[in-house]
Amino acid sequence: MTRSPPIHRAPLSRREALLFEAGVKLGGIFHQYLGIPVTPRTAPGLARTIERAVSLQPFVVSVRATIDPRRGGPMGRGRFAYRYLNPEMIEVPVLPRDGPEAVEARFAHRADLRYPLMSVIRVRGPVRGSPPRRRAA
Amino acid sequence: MTRSPPIHRAPLSRREALLFEAGVKLGGIFHQYLGIPVTPRTAPGLARTIERAVSLQPFVVSVRATIDPRRGGPMGRGRFAYRYLNPEMIEVPVLPRDGPEAVEARFAHRADLRYPLMSVIRVRGPVRGSPPRRRAA
Amino acid sequence: MTRSPPIHRAPLSRREALLFEAGVKLGGIFHQYLGIPVTPRTAPGLARTIERAVSLQPFVVSVRATIDPRRGGPMGRGRFAYRYLNPEMIEVPVLPRDGPEAVEARFAHRADLRYPLMSVIRVRGPVRGSPPRRRAA
Amino acid sequence: MTRSPPIHRAPLSRREALLFEAGVKLGGIFHQYLGIPVTPRTAPGLARTIERAVSLQPFVVSVRATIDPRRGGPMGRGRFAYRYLNPEMIEVPVLPRDGPEAVEARFAHRADLRYPLMSVIRVRGPVRGSPPRRRAA
Repeated sequence: MTRSPPIHRAPLSRREALLFEAGVKLGGIFHQYLGIPVTPRTAPGLARTIERAVSLQPFVVSVRATIDPRRGGPMGRGRFAYRYLNPEMIEVPVLPRDGPEAVEARFAHRADLRYPLMSVIRVRGPVRGSPPRRRAA
Repeated sequence: MTRSPPIHRAPLSRREALLFEAGVKLGGIFHQYLGIPVTPRTAPGLARTIERAVSLQPFVVSVRATIDPRRGGPMGRGRFAYRYLNPEMIEVPVLPRDGPEAVEARFAHRADLRYPLMSVIRVRGPVRGSPPRRRAA
Repeated sequence: MTRSPPIHRAPLSRREALLFEAGVKLGGIFHQYLGIPVTPRTAPGLARTIERAVSLQPFVVSVRATIDPRRGGPMGRGRFAYRYLNPEMIEVPVLPRDGPEAVEARFAHRADLRYPLMSVIRVRGPVRGSPPRRRAA
Repeated sequence: MTRSPPIHRAPLSRREALLFEAGVKLGGIFHQYLGIPVTPRTAPGLARTIERAVSLQPFVVSVRATIDPRRGGPMGRGRFAYRYLNPEMIEVPVLPRDGPEAVEARFAHRADLRYPLMSVIRVRGPVRGSPPRRRAA
């Protein structure tokens, strides 16, 4: 940690900073990868590439993308027999972590809401009482 | 607010949920708009379009994008005399708000870090003691 | 024209070079703008921004985007009452031109093909007999 | 081929249709993948994923992406020690083919032009005299 400069000007607890980071990752996934051509055959490789890319970003210790190109409408025929990645096809849980604390967040299409929902599933580790990062440093 | 279904399964305070939302917006801005052709003449219109789009997303009450295409390297000549939006050109502060609480976060290129930094500048309103949203509902 | 360096190593006629450019524009539109938050209220402004951006690219003299966010599925409620730009919502005819010759091409979702089709509608001006650009220069 | 519906309303020769397709692919690559986090370690996997995705698109028989994250400026430190894919890092030759004819086109950053140039390198096979596709069908 000592190699990296501080990120936030606001005094945030680790938990709070992780919630921000979880949002950054999910917002980025949605807006970066939609539109990539995909079929059931290429979906696993694309999912791995997304995982490896997201894993480079700060604090991410786990990300597991699943892509099912059969969701979200039928495929074309002949030379149009592939799809473009859309929000209905993809689910991505991410787990940013900082020491003992971690946030589990997820991007998944919610048919009931007609909306690609990004949400926090769980927060792990010491919570409210954790000292703000700035004071701890 | 009563029209909208709950977002998170985890019990988050308003402040915490806003930090997550701030991250979603900034991560999305970075990965959506980079690559758009831009010149000093078209930059203000593009900035307004980004603001209007981000403002549609949940909780955002203020977003102010500034784009300076002259940053981030020289322009080409003749028919190549335009640039593609890159992280060095753009600064976007966003202000997601929920009732009395608000988070001020920002995307801005940090030359010293050689990195497009997304960070939280300030958190406003009742802080640590705020009850988790779930219990309050 | 004299201000700009030559683009292609292959000896292409103007017509051929314009067909290539038409493809570049349409391919770029598809992969750049999908995913941007949009409502019926913001759609015209987004369309103008796309037009202005595409117009910066070489040879484009006319581009007219229309976006109808009501196509391509229903909207969510409450704070989810907006959509993300998808291929079913948008139609973009582009007209790259070089002197007397022009190509009219279009990106439009084809429900019958279940495919966002990019295609050439018309080629205008002197056709087969036009001398290759390289020799003409 | 007989399974696929016709693409263009304009009567294009195979060569002309391939030039359009080459443009579509290159324009799409530029606007889809820029912004993906990358390091020298993840670059080859990202390049393969781009190749597989582009190969799904109509007429593409060969595409070979190379990504060098060390081009285009220095990397950050610590948790910022990665880059975002930018036009200076990537080179992608694509070869759309239709029967005996093929087009070799390429996306590559041209430092001398300060521009990410998409251009046609070579056209192979029967050229000017080829009958328009529509009449041949």
